[in-house]
Amino acid sequence: MVKATKDQVDQSTKGTRPKTRDRILQVARELFNEHGEANVTLAHIGEHLGISEGNVWYHFRTKNAVISAIFMELKAKVQANQQRDVGDLRQVSQLQDLLTRGFHLMWEYRFLLRDNINWAVAQQDVYAQLIALTNQVHIFIENALKLLCQSGILAIPEWQIPIVATNLWIINRYWIDYCQTRNGQEQITEQSVQEGIEQLRSIVFPYLTPLGRQILNRSDPMNTEENATNQA
Amino acid sequence: MVKATKDQVDQSTKGTRPKTRDRILQVARELFNEHGEANVTLAHIGEHLGISEGNVWYHFRTKNAVISAIFMELKAKVQANQQRDVGDLRQVSQLQDLLTRGFHLMWEYRFLLRDNINWAVAQQDVYAQLIALTNQVHIFIENALKLLCQSGILAIPEWQIPIVATNLWIINRYWIDYCQTRNGQEQITEQSVQEGIEQLRSIVFPYLTPLGRQILNRSDPMNTEENATNQA
Repeated sequence: MVKATKDQVDQSTKGTRPKTRDRILQVARELFNEHGEANVTLAHIGEHLGISEGNVWYHFRTKNAVISAIFMELKAKVQANQQRDVGDLRQVSQLQDLLTRGFHLMWEYRFLLRDNINWAVAQQDVYAQLIALTNQVHIFIENALKLLCQSGILAIPEWQIPIVATNLWIINRYWIDYCQTRNGQEQITEQSVQEGIEQLRSIVFPYLTPLGRQILNRSDPMNTEENATNQA
Repeated sequence: MVKATKDQVDQSTKGTRPKTRDRILQVARELFNEHGEANVTLAHIGEHLGISEGNVWYHFRTKNAVISAIFMELKAKVQANQQRDVGDLRQVSQLQDLLTRGFHLMWEYRFLLRDNINWAVAQQDVYAQLIALTNQVHIFIENALKLLCQSGILAIPEWQIPIVATNLWIINRYWIDYCQTRNGQEQITEQSVQEGIEQLRSIVFPYLTPLGRQILNRSDPMNTEENATNQA
């Protein structure tokens, strides 16, 4: 969860209309995603909201402050995503759900991941935070793999776990970008999310134990063909 | 090979000093990589070369023309890379070499791959060519996997080949970007290239046949440990 700000507390007591601060963050994120962060100013954001640049400025003094706030949103969502599901990885539907939400986050916050060069050169605080978050996610994936090995679902040699975790993270991180570049795709679709999950599954599939295959078979009718092939 | 231009023909007859056109392309590529294409002008390029903007303009009328020429370089190198090695994939050292050069190309031309948003919005010809090249590389990888399966080195179920190929391409394409974001790495190192190759190997390793393991063992002393683990 995003830490409750004064605005959000006000919102919950006053009614359903999103507060200006939240609307600024949402519109900024959409404009950054669509046009690239470098091409969007505080004035553009105000214009899109039908409010003055001064009103935007009242909430955020610089574009950097907007970006930092958006980054904090992403970070909070990634952490919430991780905390909610890690105990239930044996349930494949939970895992599927975790991955689906992961891909959606990558799409919703894609400018943060895509516009690397800007952070590295001009906004080093964002860059440092991005690196820290990347490392956090990596550790999460490693731990999840270890858990699945301990549960007897996967059998990955210990020394290979960081390598497999890195491949999973890279596919998760860049899948959406890849879909766009390969197909000139303008929007994320449920199909591309499902295909991304299939890509991730194919990385861990060869390491499934017989128990793992059994669990997958029980919870996921999609896998019948794969299991038949892998067991052959 | 890049199609020989008038400059290059002149160069081969006159001596070893690189011609202005080639120097423009090299400096432009380096500046685009370092600062982002959007932040570099023809004037900057001239300044770095110690020549006038007019002299740059004599060779390239627009920045878009520079980018297109750089893209043609990358395309030619990717194609040369593919043509040279595809028949020798059984020789693991050749495969290693192919991958190493692949990662180096990703690094040398990284702005082309990284600054997606610019091509999608403002330079759609570059974007279209990038998509076409991506598809070409993907088909090459699929064919290489099929060849390795036919040679009895890999055993990948037919329907999984496109999925495995896509994972290999994504790791190859984004590895350098990942290294930068994870470690704030400023330069590509031989170590990061070697690690990238390790990531790719771990994707195909589970599909190695006994023959494949034997060939790897013979040609690549690095794999002893992996083979021991995988055969266990």
